[in-house]
Amino acid sequence: MTGVAEPSVLASVPETGDLGTALESLSGRFHNQMSTAAAVREQHGHTTTWHKNQPPDAVVFAQSTEDVIAVVKTCAECRVPVIPFGTGTSLEGQVNAPFGGISLDVSQMNRVLEVHQEDLDCVVQPGVTRKQLNNELRATGLFFPIDPGADASIGGMVGTRASGTNAVRYGTMKDNVLSLQAVMADGSLVHTGTRARKSSAGYDLTRLLVGSEGTLGVVTEITLKLHGIPEAISGGVCPFHTLEDACNAVIATIQSGIPVARIELLDELQVRASNAYSKLTLRETPTLFLEFHGSEGGVREQSEMFGAIAEDFGGGPFEWTHDPEERNRLWQARHDAYFADMQLRPGTEGLATDVCVPISRLAECILATKADIESLGLVAPIVGHVGDGNFHVSVLVDMEDQAEVARVESFMHDLVERAIAMDGTCTGEHGVGHGKMKYLDAELGGAVDVMRSVKKALDPLNILNPGKIVRV
Amino acid sequence: MTGVAEPSVLASVPETGDLGTALESLSGRFHNQMSTAAAVREQHGHTTTWHKNQPPDAVVFAQSTEDVIAVVKTCAECRVPVIPFGTGTSLEGQVNAPFGGISLDVSQMNRVLEVHQEDLDCVVQPGVTRKQLNNELRATGLFFPIDPGADASIGGMVGTRASGTNAVRYGTMKDNVLSLQAVMADGSLVHTGTRARKSSAGYDLTRLLVGSEGTLGVVTEITLKLHGIPEAISGGVCPFHTLEDACNAVIATIQSGIPVARIELLDELQVRASNAYSKLTLRETPTLFLEFHGSEGGVREQSEMFGAIAEDFGGGPFEWTHDPEERNRLWQARHDAYFADMQLRPGTEGLATDVCVPISRLAECILATKADIESLGLVAPIVGHVGDGNFHVSVLVDMEDQAEVARVESFMHDLVERAIAMDGTCTGEHGVGHGKMKYLDAELGGAVDVMRSVKKALDPLNILNPGKIVRV
Repeated sequence: MTGVAEPSVLASVPETGDLGTALESLSGRFHNQMSTAAAVREQHGHTTTWHKNQPPDAVVFAQSTEDVIAVVKTCAECRVPVIPFGTGTSLEGQVNAPFGGISLDVSQMNRVLEVHQEDLDCVVQPGVTRKQLNNELRATGLFFPIDPGADASIGGMVGTRASGTNAVRYGTMKDNVLSLQAVMADGSLVHTGTRARKSSAGYDLTRLLVGSEGTLGVVTEITLKLHGIPEAISGGVCPFHTLEDACNAVIATIQSGIPVARIELLDELQVRASNAYSKLTLRETPTLFLEFHGSEGGVREQSEMFGAIAEDFGGGPFEWTHDPEERNRLWQARHDAYFADMQLRPGTEGLATDVCVPISRLAECILATKADIESLGLVAPIVGHVGDGNFHVSVLVDMEDQAEVARVESFMHDLVERAIAMDGTCTGEHGVGHGKMKYLDAELGGAVDVMRSVKKALDPLNILNPGKIVRV
Repeated sequence: MTGVAEPSVLASVPETGDLGTALESLSGRFHNQMSTAAAVREQHGHTTTWHKNQPPDAVVFAQSTEDVIAVVKTCAECRVPVIPFGTGTSLEGQVNAPFGGISLDVSQMNRVLEVHQEDLDCVVQPGVTRKQLNNELRATGLFFPIDPGADASIGGMVGTRASGTNAVRYGTMKDNVLSLQAVMADGSLVHTGTRARKSSAGYDLTRLLVGSEGTLGVVTEITLKLHGIPEAISGGVCPFHTLEDACNAVIATIQSGIPVARIELLDELQVRASNAYSKLTLRETPTLFLEFHGSEGGVREQSEMFGAIAEDFGGGPFEWTHDPEERNRLWQARHDAYFADMQLRPGTEGLATDVCVPISRLAECILATKADIESLGLVAPIVGHVGDGNFHVSVLVDMEDQAEVARVESFMHDLVERAIAMDGTCTGEHGVGHGKMKYLDAELGGAVDVMRSVKKALDPLNILNPGKIVRV
């Protein structure tokens, strides 16, 4: 894959460390838990992203918190970068190793350590994936709602402050992590909180680490909130004549206080792609996918209220069902949107990006983006967690065509600038990685200096995932 | 009022600054917006607390963000402490000035700057109180749910990460602040975020400042999430034979996923106090106050489901009503609990403290606390936001009786240690101030060092509310 260079991050090269000593010391401890094979390093050098592969010098497969401590301590002693790695599904180059160093793969730390059914919480290792967790929880009547689409690791989801389709009702990782155990840059192990449901005891280090993409500490245990599986779930699809109508129906739904669990927009191109890939027969027009959680009576009431709102905006018919198989088929199609998109233009790379704006600006933002896509002649379906004002564009790019790559970069740039101008953010849920570092100043100004002070204070040697989020 | 000294904080005296120059410079700018009168200084030297009054050297009444910047810059130049002050309803000595300095009273910064009805958010100055905000929102159909009882300022509620009766459904301040504008220790003004409903753009400085009690920055604008006023509200009371039965009914209610808006426990002594003070006629036995928000059908369903659970634990009858007057009378009584308690033993001081434990340990924790109260011969009603595992004890103390004060201190200490031993926290919502600093190490261990690093990085001169949360 031809990648797009990010020369801006090269300004933050850490001081050269003693890589040789680090590798020797680590291989003495880790033996076959460590690899320097090119294929393994490359597999850890980038993820589901168009960013250039930047492999680490070695990969260590940690099996315990002690392993993580050992790696971080060695890297601190030798001033060598250490980059946490989960399942490799991040989108902004979060796991790339622009300065080499050690990829710390935690995928083998994949045990659910405790489930406290009475307290609706659990403690997991960072390599547990969200599907694995929900499988292991099945007998308890509880579930973990955050669903970014990919079967990401919980550790990675902590790192990027992930959210997804359920966030409109259940919040994001920031809302669903009770506390963390993490290894800090000096190798010390800290617990950021307790299992209390709320606390006013000191600075919120849990939220400071959530979304820090491995730049402030390496998470080794996560205490998560769980939720009861709803008594009833209903779901369905609702077509609209225009994107604007669909967006306005979403705004009215949120304002009316209907506790919708999922409300996802697919533009007509995405519907076409999903029809083809997932064998659906939807009308190819802007469409909302919805899900309601509650009691039998509650989900019926919510569904009917939404149906009436949709009608007000010329949408419908809203067809909904309690049938789990039909619902799952729909949401599987939603989750497979990325793969469906790839079929629209085989042989291209999919550039997935996201922004988030106040919901009152959503229609305007999506329509302007759509106009850009058309005027630039791009193939780029739009899907969105629109209840939060968050939407994604998957641009299908021929990476061999430099002119097209340049057009896409310019499109991406304008998309982010537009979102920021609307009092929105350059990323609702993908994170900054190195791909979106350049937008933080425009979005947050002087707050980036505060972030830099925090980074310097907690990682003075700049060994934790250097070259991500902030330049130091 | 005779106070209890906190000698431990004296270890962190900041380097002596140039107070004279600071006072001169500030009075040159602020004229009659500044006071050095003893009465004003004392009024700002402590709050609703048993902690000793520690007055500042002067009080500045800020009227704008520029005023706040000017005060912080002057204090930074002269190395003089600056202590933000809202309404003075904090409980752990958050506004005390153990090292003197300037109390920065923001109560005149009390404008609601923007209401974005479509986006369910608003921007307010820190001196706006929660009741004022809800009055100003009345015409919009929206409300701000966080309700700590006192008519606290929003700025103060940010500072202590406040919550209260509605938190079980609507979360705490951490969940309801979208972003902040704050003046940092060097006088720079930062915006921690945008109005986007969610973001993955960099470190979560919003949550870092929420709960930092003015020790990391002075908040000058707050963007808050709002919620639609529910279509229907029902509420009622439910008596139980024992505290254990009441707690177990709460656990079952939360586990069953009933989206209860408020679920408050009053022990029999609190019911007696409230009967007398608020002219209620409740049976004097452990009692739950409840409220449900939703559609007409929804609140009926929730109320009936709760009634059935209560019956399973020998409780009831659960009497509930849609009538707003009856409901308000009940919740007014709940809010007046503190004043009702004072009547139980006139002439004493009320020591209000709180802890929070995982809900599975709630009954055990409350029962052990109750046993302590009895064996020590204290008068100390218990009320609690029990849906979160959070409860309060109001100990009525004769501050002239040194032996009693010592007993109460020992009781308080044991209460916190018990909560921490149950994987809970020393404070669910009151904050640390200087009253609970001594417990952070026991609760969070090495994480306190991380907090200290953050504090040093963001306030290197230790001028922002020194002597609170962490020693530096």
